[in-house]
Amino acid sequence: MMKTLQVALGARSYPIYIGQNILTESSLFASHIKSREVLVVTNETVAPLYLDVVMTSLQDYRTEKIILPDGEQYKTLEIMSRVFDHMLKARFSRQATIVALGGGVIGDMAGFAAACYQRGVPFIQVPTTLLSQVDSSVGGKTAVNHPLGKNMIGAFYQPQCVFADTATLNTLDDRQFSAGMAEVIKYGLINDIEFFSWLEENMTKLMDRDPELLAQAIARSCQDKADIVAADEYETGLRALLNLGHTFGHAIETGCGYGQVLHGEAIAIGMVMAAWMSQCLGWISADDVKRVQAILNAARLPITVPETMTPDQFMSLMAVDKKVQDGAIRLILLTAIGKAVLSDDYEPSALDATLTHFCQ
Amino acid sequence: MMKTLQVALGARSYPIYIGQNILTESSLFASHIKSREVLVVTNETVAPLYLDVVMTSLQDYRTEKIILPDGEQYKTLEIMSRVFDHMLKARFSRQATIVALGGGVIGDMAGFAAACYQRGVPFIQVPTTLLSQVDSSVGGKTAVNHPLGKNMIGAFYQPQCVFADTATLNTLDDRQFSAGMAEVIKYGLINDIEFFSWLEENMTKLMDRDPELLAQAIARSCQDKADIVAADEYETGLRALLNLGHTFGHAIETGCGYGQVLHGEAIAIGMVMAAWMSQCLGWISADDVKRVQAILNAARLPITVPETMTPDQFMSLMAVDKKVQDGAIRLILLTAIGKAVLSDDYEPSALDATLTHFCQ
Repeated sequence: MMKTLQVALGARSYPIYIGQNILTESSLFASHIKSREVLVVTNETVAPLYLDVVMTSLQDYRTEKIILPDGEQYKTLEIMSRVFDHMLKARFSRQATIVALGGGVIGDMAGFAAACYQRGVPFIQVPTTLLSQVDSSVGGKTAVNHPLGKNMIGAFYQPQCVFADTATLNTLDDRQFSAGMAEVIKYGLINDIEFFSWLEENMTKLMDRDPELLAQAIARSCQDKADIVAADEYETGLRALLNLGHTFGHAIETGCGYGQVLHGEAIAIGMVMAAWMSQCLGWISADDVKRVQAILNAARLPITVPETMTPDQFMSLMAVDKKVQDGAIRLILLTAIGKAVLSDDYEPSALDATLTHFCQ
Repeated sequence: MMKTLQVALGARSYPIYIGQNILTESSLFASHIKSREVLVVTNETVAPLYLDVVMTSLQDYRTEKIILPDGEQYKTLEIMSRVFDHMLKARFSRQATIVALGGGVIGDMAGFAAACYQRGVPFIQVPTTLLSQVDSSVGGKTAVNHPLGKNMIGAFYQPQCVFADTATLNTLDDRQFSAGMAEVIKYGLINDIEFFSWLEENMTKLMDRDPELLAQAIARSCQDKADIVAADEYETGLRALLNLGHTFGHAIETGCGYGQVLHGEAIAIGMVMAAWMSQCLGWISADDVKRVQAILNAARLPITVPETMTPDQFMSLMAVDKKVQDGAIRLILLTAIGKAVLSDDYEPSALDATLTHFCQ
């Protein structure tokens, strides 16, 4: 049965639909499309799997498609420009709707393209990975990467609605599935201890892709994120907590080259680093750190830093991260499992010790 | 004496300062800058004239500068990317402020860069041409061009404030000055008959750059635009009237190649075309058309279409313009001097006749 969550953002509020095979619901699409012009943006991996079903659901429209290369390394202004080229060649107006069919990379690029095309056209998120269903499709963050930093160029731009079809997770490879689970675990760590405990109990079945449990985990994750985003749409405070593990993680992604370490994998390592540093500061216990490591292990996620990385490289890459304000590196740390805090008021030696510990 | 207008947009409200030599007011800049990081974006023409004075006013900050090539043909995603490169190399955070020092091209590009850098940083508009002081610095429209259409990629993004220093107009060449006057005249034509009559009476002195009259004309133009923008920030209705002359004008700019015909010149021709078509429809009189031609002549603006343009080329270029909704070309036409209307409910033959008349 389909679940519907509402992301409450005033005039920019939108629903998230979660369920099996909802991509076939053409009337549900129709209720969110206001002109005949529709462009489906997808990639080479997703197109053979789900493009036909989406095109069929959109057959009453003048629907165009564009298939981009797959991978974080293609999340650039240059690749995104192909969307503009395609829409302008098709003479699409500012009433055209963009449908983003794919994982977080497609969602981020197609969403940013929608934010910019003729200064903003409506778009619909159809996330096909666990990570994008629980994270990047909720909250309106869109962006492309720059050689000097991830997600450095982008916009806050909300979709008309999100279609999270759980059936699409059946074709997800194991590594991508685990990467998505990192973000699910993150919601528990940030501010939902009850969910964290539930995940500890059910991780084995979740990793076996039990459909009912997965739908529950996706809905709870989306709800947790939607609550935070509704309270702080433009990331002036609370919303920053969603970046738990991201300052370390972005440095790992950039340092290793985009596409080498998956985003969720980097975030898993980053969360362990944040937990270890929190213990180093005396904010959480060694047992807490072990719980974090154990659940990430159960989700088959990496918890050690790639060998090529050095502490200096971390410091350099983290200094350009968006969490920096006037020079101090602000980090999201833990004061308990289920209680994250944003802080630049920590003993600097704890950060040094953490980087030294993890960069062997 | 400095005049201050307020653009009323709720949380995004901002002041426009108009006066002689206000670029030296460092405390006025300081009141709108919230971190130590400032990037001044300007071009090769403006830099030798005004960059030093602005850098001096900003000397208490960690101020960087970037000098872009001058001209509409450089208003591209590619050139704009240099702003991102520069800011990332300088490790500027999302608290950094961008100062746009130059005409409309610099304002549009720097503003769009501000909208996108780390999903949005504050920016300050310092327009140095008549056109940008009365038009592009008011209302938050930012954009770059695409080979298939002008301003096709952009964002609605409001500045922290606008500094319109009338002293900068002394160095403006005659052609650019006239181009700016086209937009001033536009406000009268759209919905301010009183201002239009005042302009008819004072055009000779204005063209002699009488400083007091110029300040009045700029303030009235900004107020007229600010009132319209406040009523319709995202151009869902009323604001479209500001595009009087623009659908024809954009086609001329694109058709002749960016940079060949100035924006204001193209808009002047476009306004005459709109007036002529309105007469063709019986909405205004031949005398009204003559008044429009006469005031544009007095402002030394072109009122005929470049010889290379054909009716087919117009139709093709106008079809991709943003004023198109589901196929019909919507135009801003006149029902009187001082009364513009947005319409797609006109006799198509009037458009054909207009294009045939103007393309000899």
